[in-house]
Amino acid sequence: MKISDLKFDADGLVPVAVQDVDTGEVLLIGFANEEAVRQTFDKRLATFWSRSRGELWTKGDTSGNRLHLVEVRYNCEESTLLYRVRLEGDSACHTGNYSCFFRTLDAS
Amino acid sequence: MKISDLKFDADGLVPVAVQDVDTGEVLLIGFANEEAVRQTFDKRLATFWSRSRGELWTKGDTSGNRLHLVEVRYNCEESTLLYRVRLEGDSACHTGNYSCFFRTLDAS
Repeated sequence: MKISDLKFDADGLVPVAVQDVDTGEVLLIGFANEEAVRQTFDKRLATFWSRSRGELWTKGDTSGNRLHLVEVRYNCEESTLLYRVRLEGDSACHTGNYSCFFRTLDAS
Repeated sequence: MKISDLKFDADGLVPVAVQDVDTGEVLLIGFANEEAVRQTFDKRLATFWSRSRGELWTKGDTSGNRLHLVEVRYNCEESTLLYRVRLEGDSACHTGNYSCFFRTLDAS
């Protein structure tokens, strides 16, 4: 299985969940294109494609809260990724929270 | 925060990571539209929008391996979801594997 064999969508992207290997918590969901996956391996840092800014984005470049790569897993259909990482610092979220998923949704 | 306030993309979807609350493992990543999120709460079963089939899909309707809802979390930007679930049966993946993320990607 090569990076280029992943089933990128019409925009050239796959969704990526990021999991802290030390706690098991899901920290965030991003998107990656082929180059973002390559840079994740090259830098050993979780890297994404920002859909809003239209650019590659290595988490922590600004904040210092880098996500150090442990491994990349891919799903049965080769269309989604799981970055398993170690968090540098204590917050993966730009709000200062540990995880981006710090709120619970109600049925409303 | 209402379901309808989520920041669905141009296709009306948000990516959803699914986590087994008992093991902490990430089982799969899917997509949900507003109706899929509502049905997830109504049925208390993880429900998605299948991009390939163009239909709502409650995981386990065919296989019996349902994902019973514990809670839904949403991210800082209100644009992605985390379904936290209990797995019925022993495989969340249609391949028979416990998780869809049963393979590791190499840098190639």
